[in-house]
Amino acid sequence: MQTKVSSLTREVIISDTGPTILIGERINPTGKKKLQQELLAGNLDLVRQEAAQQVAAGADILDVNVGATGVDEVALLPQAILAVREVTDVPLCIDSGNPRALEAALKVYKGRALVNSVKAEESSLQDVLALVKEHNAAVIGLTMDEKGIPADAARRIQLAHRIVERAETMGLEREDIVIDCLNIPVAANTAAGATLVEAISAVKRELGVNMTLGASNVSFGLPERPLLNGVFLGIVINLGVNCPVVDVGKVRQYALAADALLGRDQYMRRFIQDFRIRQKAAQQQP
Amino acid sequence: MQTKVSSLTREVIISDTGPTILIGERINPTGKKKLQQELLAGNLDLVRQEAAQQVAAGADILDVNVGATGVDEVALLPQAILAVREVTDVPLCIDSGNPRALEAALKVYKGRALVNSVKAEESSLQDVLALVKEHNAAVIGLTMDEKGIPADAARRIQLAHRIVERAETMGLEREDIVIDCLNIPVAANTAAGATLVEAISAVKRELGVNMTLGASNVSFGLPERPLLNGVFLGIVINLGVNCPVVDVGKVRQYALAADALLGRDQYMRRFIQDFRIRQKAAQQQP
Repeated sequence: MQTKVSSLTREVIISDTGPTILIGERINPTGKKKLQQELLAGNLDLVRQEAAQQVAAGADILDVNVGATGVDEVALLPQAILAVREVTDVPLCIDSGNPRALEAALKVYKGRALVNSVKAEESSLQDVLALVKEHNAAVIGLTMDEKGIPADAARRIQLAHRIVERAETMGLEREDIVIDCLNIPVAANTAAGATLVEAISAVKRELGVNMTLGASNVSFGLPERPLLNGVFLGIVINLGVNCPVVDVGKVRQYALAADALLGRDQYMRRFIQDFRIRQKAAQQQP
Repeated sequence: MQTKVSSLTREVIISDTGPTILIGERINPTGKKKLQQELLAGNLDLVRQEAAQQVAAGADILDVNVGATGVDEVALLPQAILAVREVTDVPLCIDSGNPRALEAALKVYKGRALVNSVKAEESSLQDVLALVKEHNAAVIGLTMDEKGIPADAARRIQLAHRIVERAETMGLEREDIVIDCLNIPVAANTAAGATLVEAISAVKRELGVNMTLGASNVSFGLPERPLLNGVFLGIVINLGVNCPVVDVGKVRQYALAADALLGRDQYMRRFIQDFRIRQKAAQQQP
C-alpha cells in the first residue's frame, strides 16, 4: 500500500516497508500566541521560518494550518501554501476544517497534496472527498463524527471503515486514504493510550491503510514530553503508523531508532547519519 | 496471568495490568572483564556493589549470573546469591545454563525464585523443569533448542508452545512460566527486530504467558544504545513483555514512559516521581 504525495519537484511515498515519513506539525497556531498574532495580521514570516527549520530538522512533509479565531482561512491558507513554497519544495499537507479553505489551497498547490482532513460525518464526507477526487489528492480521514472522538476503540474502527468505504464509492483508491485514529492526552484519561493502540492495530489489520497520528497530544500536561512522545512514536510506528505528524526537531531520533530496530533503515544508514550530525552539533555548542 | 516471585520479605507480581517489572541485568560477567576477574578470584564485592546500585536505580528483581570461563558455578552461584542478599531484599532471578548450579543456588535461596532458564531441548526440559517444580519456583523459557535460536518467528513460537506444554505436563502452572523470545542484534541482521516483534505478539496471543526479554542485545554494535534500547523497550512492553531484563539505570525512564502511556501507572505517579528524582539529581550536578 503506497500513498504518493508530491510537490512539483519532489515525491514522497508513504508505506509500511519504507522509512517512516515525518509530517512537521509546527505551522499550526493552536496554542501558539505569536503565530496567531502574525496570522491575524496577515504576516507569514513566521510560517516561512517554521517551514525552513522543520525541513532542516528532517521533515519529509509539512502540515500547513492557519486556523485561528478571526483568521479568514479561505484567503490566508492559499497564501500560506505559496509562502511555504518560497522556502522549501517538500510536499505539503493542507490542513483545515473548512472545505472552502481546502479548495482555495488546492487550487494554488502544485503537485499531489495530502488533505487534512475528512471526518466520518456526512457533510465532511461529501464535501471533502469530492474535492480530494477533483484535485487528485490524498486525504487523511479522522475517526470522529458529529459526536466527537469516540472514547472506545470499536467505534473508531467502525468510523475508519465508513470513511474508507465512502471514499472508495466516490472513486478514490484505498492507497489515497490515510487514517488518523486520533490521539488524546493520557493525563486526562489514563486509558486513552491503550484504547488508541487497540484502534490502530485493528484498523491496520482490517483495512491495511497507511496511517498518521498527531503524536504530540498524548503527553499534554505532563513533564518530559519529548520522551513520552518519542516512546509512544516507537510503539505506534511498530503498529503501522507510517506518517505521523510530529515536532520533527524533538522526536526525529525516536522515529529513526524505531525504523532501525524494525528493519526499515538498511544498514542503519539514516540512524547513524543522524546520530553523527547531532553529535557534531553537540560538540560545537559552547 | 500473575507470576509471583519473592524473597523472604518482598513479593513481586508480574502481570499485563500492573507496572512493568524490571529485572536488573548487570550481575553478569559476559563482556565485563573486571567482573570476570573478580569472580575467578572468588571476590564478590563487585557483585554486591552492582546489586545495591541497581536496586537504588529502581530494579524490581536482580538477575544473578556468574558464568565465566574458569568459574565453578556450582560453588560460586550460591555464594553470589547470599552476597546479594546481604545488600538487598529484592527477589532474585537465578541465571545459569548449568542445572547443578541452579540446584545449588535454589537450595540456599529463601523465597520463590525465578529460574533463568530452561531451553526447548530435551535435557534442559527434563532437568530444569524438575528442579523448578521441586523448589516451587517460576522459570524463564527460552525459545531455542539444540540448534540454537531459530531465525524465523514461526519456529520460536513453536518452541514456546513446547516449553509450556512440557511444563504443564510436569505439574507447573502456566503462570509460573515466563517466555523469552530472544533478542539478537539488529546490526548483524536487519530483520531481527521485526522477527522478534512478530514472535512476541504471537506467543502472547496464543499462550497468554508473561514474557521477558534481554532488552539490551538489540543495539549491540550501534551508537546511542540507551535510545535504541529504550525505544525497543516501549515497543515490546506494548506487545506484552512485562518483565524485561535491562540496564535499569539507563532505560528505566523509557519503561516508566511506556507504562504511563499504556495505562499501567495510575495518575502517572511513578513516571512523575522518577522525573522529579532525575531532575533533582541533574540540578545537583556541578
